Amino acid sequence: MPGNSFGKIFRVTTFGESHGPLVGVVIDGVPAGLPISEDDINYELFFRRPGGFFVSPRRELDKARIVSGVFNGKSTGAPITIIVENVDVDSRYYESIKYTPRPGHADLPYIFRYGFDNWDYRGGGRASGRETVARVIAGAIAKKLLMLLNTQIAGCIESLGWIRIDREITFLDALKSRCRKTRACREDYDSIFQNVLETIINEGDSIGAIVRVVVDGVPKGLGEPVFDKLKADLAKAIMSIPGVIGFELGIGFEATRKRGSEVSDELVVINNEIRWKHNFYGGILGGISTGEQIVFKCAFKPTSSIRKPIKTIDLRTLEEAMITVEGRHDPCIGIRGVAVVEAMTAITLVDHAMRSGLIPSTKLSQKDVEIIENGWKRYRSLCQHGEESP
Amino acid sequence: MPGNSFGKIFRVTTFGESHGPLVGVVIDGVPAGLPISEDDINYELFFRRPGGFFVSPRRELDKARIVSGVFNGKSTGAPITIIVENVDVDSRYYESIKYTPRPGHADLPYIFRYGFDNWDYRGGGRASGRETVARVIAGAIAKKLLMLLNTQIAGCIESLGWIRIDREITFLDALKSRCRKTRACREDYDSIFQNVLETIINEGDSIGAIVRVVVDGVPKGLGEPVFDKLKADLAKAIMSIPGVIGFELGIGFEATRKRGSEVSDELVVINNEIRWKHNFYGGILGGISTGEQIVFKCAFKPTSSIRKPIKTIDLRTLEEAMITVEGRHDPCIGIRGVAVVEAMTAITLVDHAMRSGLIPSTKLSQKDVEIIENGWKRYRSLCQHGEESP
Amino acid sequence: MPGNSFGKIFRVTTFGESHGPLVGVVIDGVPAGLPISEDDINYELFFRRPGGFFVSPRRELDKARIVSGVFNGKSTGAPITIIVENVDVDSRYYESIKYTPRPGHADLPYIFRYGFDNWDYRGGGRASGRETVARVIAGAIAKKLLMLLNTQIAGCIESLGWIRIDREITFLDALKSRCRKTRACREDYDSIFQNVLETIINEGDSIGAIVRVVVDGVPKGLGEPVFDKLKADLAKAIMSIPGVIGFELGIGFEATRKRGSEVSDELVVINNEIRWKHNFYGGILGGISTGEQIVFKCAFKPTSSIRKPIKTIDLRTLEEAMITVEGRHDPCIGIRGVAVVEAMTAITLVDHAMRSGLIPSTKLSQKDVEIIENGWKRYRSLCQHGEESP
Amino acid sequence: MPGNSFGKIFRVTTFGESHGPLVGVVIDGVPAGLPISEDDINYELFFRRPGGFFVSPRRELDKARIVSGVFNGKSTGAPITIIVENVDVDSRYYESIKYTPRPGHADLPYIFRYGFDNWDYRGGGRASGRETVARVIAGAIAKKLLMLLNTQIAGCIESLGWIRIDREITFLDALKSRCRKTRACREDYDSIFQNVLETIINEGDSIGAIVRVVVDGVPKGLGEPVFDKLKADLAKAIMSIPGVIGFELGIGFEATRKRGSEVSDELVVINNEIRWKHNFYGGILGGISTGEQIVFKCAFKPTSSIRKPIKTIDLRTLEEAMITVEGRHDPCIGIRGVAVVEAMTAITLVDHAMRSGLIPSTKLSQKDVEIIENGWKRYRSLCQHGEESP
Repeated sequence: MPGNSFGKIFRVTTFGESHGPLVGVVIDGVPAGLPISEDDINYELFFRRPGGFFVSPRRELDKARIVSGVFNGKSTGAPITIIVENVDVDSRYYESIKYTPRPGHADLPYIFRYGFDNWDYRGGGRASGRETVARVIAGAIAKKLLMLLNTQIAGCIESLGWIRIDREITFLDALKSRCRKTRACREDYDSIFQNVLETIINEGDSIGAIVRVVVDGVPKGLGEPVFDKLKADLAKAIMSIPGVIGFELGIGFEATRKRGSEVSDELVVINNEIRWKHNFYGGILGGISTGEQIVFKCAFKPTSSIRKPIKTIDLRTLEEAMITVEGRHDPCIGIRGVAVVEAMTAITLVDHAMRSGLIPSTKLSQKDVEIIENGWKRYRSLCQHGEESP
Repeated sequence: MPGNSFGKIFRVTTFGESHGPLVGVVIDGVPAGLPISEDDINYELFFRRPGGFFVSPRRELDKARIVSGVFNGKSTGAPITIIVENVDVDSRYYESIKYTPRPGHADLPYIFRYGFDNWDYRGGGRASGRETVARVIAGAIAKKLLMLLNTQIAGCIESLGWIRIDREITFLDALKSRCRKTRACREDYDSIFQNVLETIINEGDSIGAIVRVVVDGVPKGLGEPVFDKLKADLAKAIMSIPGVIGFELGIGFEATRKRGSEVSDELVVINNEIRWKHNFYGGILGGISTGEQIVFKCAFKPTSSIRKPIKTIDLRTLEEAMITVEGRHDPCIGIRGVAVVEAMTAITLVDHAMRSGLIPSTKLSQKDVEIIENGWKRYRSLCQHGEESP
Repeated sequence: MPGNSFGKIFRVTTFGESHGPLVGVVIDGVPAGLPISEDDINYELFFRRPGGFFVSPRRELDKARIVSGVFNGKSTGAPITIIVENVDVDSRYYESIKYTPRPGHADLPYIFRYGFDNWDYRGGGRASGRETVARVIAGAIAKKLLMLLNTQIAGCIESLGWIRIDREITFLDALKSRCRKTRACREDYDSIFQNVLETIINEGDSIGAIVRVVVDGVPKGLGEPVFDKLKADLAKAIMSIPGVIGFELGIGFEATRKRGSEVSDELVVINNEIRWKHNFYGGILGGISTGEQIVFKCAFKPTSSIRKPIKTIDLRTLEEAMITVEGRHDPCIGIRGVAVVEAMTAITLVDHAMRSGLIPSTKLSQKDVEIIENGWKRYRSLCQHGEESP
Repeated sequence: MPGNSFGKIFRVTTFGESHGPLVGVVIDGVPAGLPISEDDINYELFFRRPGGFFVSPRRELDKARIVSGVFNGKSTGAPITIIVENVDVDSRYYESIKYTPRPGHADLPYIFRYGFDNWDYRGGGRASGRETVARVIAGAIAKKLLMLLNTQIAGCIESLGWIRIDREITFLDALKSRCRKTRACREDYDSIFQNVLETIINEGDSIGAIVRVVVDGVPKGLGEPVFDKLKADLAKAIMSIPGVIGFELGIGFEATRKRGSEVSDELVVINNEIRWKHNFYGGILGGISTGEQIVFKCAFKPTSSIRKPIKTIDLRTLEEAMITVEGRHDPCIGIRGVAVVEAMTAITLVDHAMRSGLIPSTKLSQKDVEIIENGWKRYRSLCQHGEESP
């Protein structure tokens, strides 16, 4: 049974392989009347392609093409399909390692599952991080829709390898990272991270990272009580991203060391509204949002593809072999990963907002559209990277 | 949109409130021919009710009653419904705190979502941990079905509060915890944990815990490639459990501190089979199982209900109030939680095994049944608690 | 993969066998705040049990018991579970025909699918019409919710065997059938139908029927454009009822004989509203409701169980055998069927109304509740059968 | 909530509008190893475009382009995306009728649902029959997969307007219709139908039709017991096709006129196998296949677009207006419709075969592939239309 779609009402289905002609996404459940331009999409795609030397030098000049569901610049209620062509694709290297699977990649699991003869060994095929282009596209539309509720998502790099930042990270810290090459959560760490990444690149190695997300303007009462708790669906969304192997809500594992009395929150009244004083549990209790900021972090493992030689097995002889993974790879997948984490967060929240009836799934009113357009303009103005328009 | 069911083929729907007449579960997708007895179910329910003083003294003598889907001791292919009556229920205390919501519980989020007038304030209502009885029931059937693949799940307490065990925990370590009062992963820690729990109880406090799970006998190639990755569905399953706020696959967050060359696995050939030497990433790559043991851990926060007074707000006046949570509560929800984590793991794996065609979803052959019965007998023999039969 | 649930937001899961301890239903997606009593449910269950000699003499004094999801008389947002005990069950007859499957029933298909050894041969097991008790229960709640939109559903018998009524059937005609023993769409046909049924009973035979449904007060714009067209989901809902083998929307098959110019509708303006003059296509165009009445009919085959001897095969010898189906059976399943058809229509419409955001799926306002209560009272006053209260 | 996908395991998601750049489909759940070529797809697309003057003169030289999921000519297990460009599109006519909705089309319902400002009025937009190109593409792959079970689907025109064929239609009759311009179920009716269609075209009118389907080689035990009965899912699949307003399984509505004793089937033993003598109920009992041929028919209304003037309302003034629907339209949509009905039948059966574990959803063995390729070659040889290759 395929697991290729995400969301119940706002429903995202992705397709395309790393070295096929294109990658794309069908987005169902977008209400009619939402202004959507290719420029909106390209704006967000930029953050998955920061362009510096810290990311894969494969020139993914990803340009979105809307091929269905938008008429006269607005969504019609029909499924929205957006594609990005794969350019600058070179599969020759992969021919040479066809029989020597990369130990840290999905090569062997795909062979186990689908059979060696049916395996698309070119650049990871469907398992490639390239698939996340489709997620960022859908995330751009999700982020726009969330403007209706004034809900904004910001992610950043909280830790890069052994460099840990022990100050609390606010929503603004995370938001400002959009203007930084390394997505560092603080200005002064941007250059520190750059130094680390240069070292790692020079060593032909890679490094792990922790991505922190803060969501501001969360509506109260979001999430379903039992299995589709907001924390559960967020965990699934984030853990479905290639390379993510850990998820913590609020204080997460730190709470396991504590007494209840140490991490028991208190209710307070601020501006006539009941609020939680500490927000220890990241804005979600019983699986349902409290209205406080949603705060979580996730763990990206180091890029599996490194220039250093790795021990593997030749499938033809079952004998030891060495490979050096050439191709073009990021020293730290977590950096591009921030954009993907933000996108999956947005998709999850829009879906739940629709499930709870807070965002209409059929059509937007004129007033809805104005709120969205204003919010979106503000959000985009925070980081004008100038790549989105020609 | 309800989020009250879990699984696509092996599909579990739970119902019932803490202080209603009963809790129960409808299990769809069980193939015909599986021997199921109330004794099987009660055997597993025992582990959610270890009976000692370390858990809530509410006497939940939970006895399962099968009311559909089983005929002559075997499943028929029809939905299986199993209920457990709520006995020993006393709602008086909750009347007294109806207007002073507990800050660490789902009280206020439920009020936000469903309205104060519709809120079942008795013992957490639907948000109560009592709902997990239904999960353990479904988990018992899932565990039996997994015997067909010789897949076994074992969970244990790896850390209790500040007590950390820094040795690697093997499958056998975890399995043997079933015979220990505190589910400690090692014999010598059982009494240490008991001492901690006694202290905590005396202080009227609670404590957090880390649950570690090891799955042995995992088939290769399990999991869907993109959104329904095995790691994503496991994360969702575990994070849907009340009190869980963190999930780590394999080395998890530790990987974020590392260079790729340090945590790059190697392939080796053992008994003519390709294997991973280190299994750093917990038996899952690209979202698909490698055949190595699946290893993960999760974080249980300290029980929110403690005897110590907590600051809250009176909903009628919006003024400060203090509550002392009486009721009957565990010093550490993680201990009972182990059974629930095991159950959700089993449900997820059976569902994926069916999605991949490894366990039939329509009917079992006679030979299938024999394999299952033998495996189940062996599994049960490991810890005979003698509670399941009268 | 189980097919035991219906609806996407208003989601109905049924369980229980004909000769098991009970049948029941879990209803997910009911918004909090809906007043629900066992009396409401029993009121609707009455129409599935008209009590006369025209239906099975098995005394199904079905009394609903609400076991979850309702607190202080109102829904809480939690799954609502309602059960009806099976009383007056006698399985002895079925033991005697265990090896001689009934040709018109699901006996052999179930054996093919689940295996002879796993087959619940008592009264059809899960395939029994008894399962439809659960549908009528869910339908009662769905009908109540539809009162919010002033949407009312009425079904009736349009044709009983060779007796055809060639006058147009209005919503009121259908509604009034609720007060008639045979659910005849016209007063004067009630006695004609009674005579036919008596003849059929005396002959030990059975007879087919056409059920006509008219839905009044349909909101405009209901239905999803492509696969989940309203006409498609209604067809599925109705065709999922035991014994139904045909479905026609509007003029249905009659249209196939016509020229487009004969059955081309016209738009007219009535009270400043655009309306269709003829409503040839039963209130649905392009899969979406037009706001005109939804009109469809469906075909019930004659009850398969008849007293006359039927030729079958003995499974042990593969030789011919004769059976006379004793048990207790309706001369025409279509009559009770009307209540089930109404229920499935209500479930489908509520689900689509929620999907389109016209009925909230999380909680009702106080004003919503008033509208519902008034509508429901009016609807119930049309036929006071006095069976619902003790 | 979107309704834009069909199937649970073999899952089809369509996209694209009549006058957009392309229409397409994402097909999830195709097992790895299935040989798929653009030629296979174009072969089936031909039957939706018989090319004669009996169908719309819009030159839909639909050529399929596979853009994901196929590598080296075989499926990889990844989602398969296939697109067809819209060429020869001219939207000018539709500009002129933007304010005068066509009464028999989905124009007004779409405006009700999505708002006039968001309505894609060009050629019906998403509601256009053009969307069914995507279904035929998915159907081609489904038909290929069904070859594994030796299951073949054949549809034909049983009645065209007032011309009724009262002989029983066998599987071969239906199959041979693939070689006839009008899809007539009998050779001698092909020219009669042609004459009728010429008359209708000359009159600027249209005509309805009944499509009959016979499925040969049906596996026993297909279908889920309760809501996802095979008859229910088939009804939904067929009723989701534009223009279909009736569905009958087996003898359908005819059964409503009958006594049970007249239409009670008998079991017989043929070649040591238990069979039904009459197959009155179209090969499905209790929602589960009996192994007999599945037989059903459906009603296509006359094409709504006719050259004759139709009365409508001007949306700007709410005054009467007349339109003559120019564009390019079929005299009888049922004829092209046969290909779409076959496709939806194939999709439904493959999905159920996968749900029952009869067709693997993960990967095919080499032997599976051989069986499929042989069956497919045989099936294609029945009607070589020579359009599929250049």
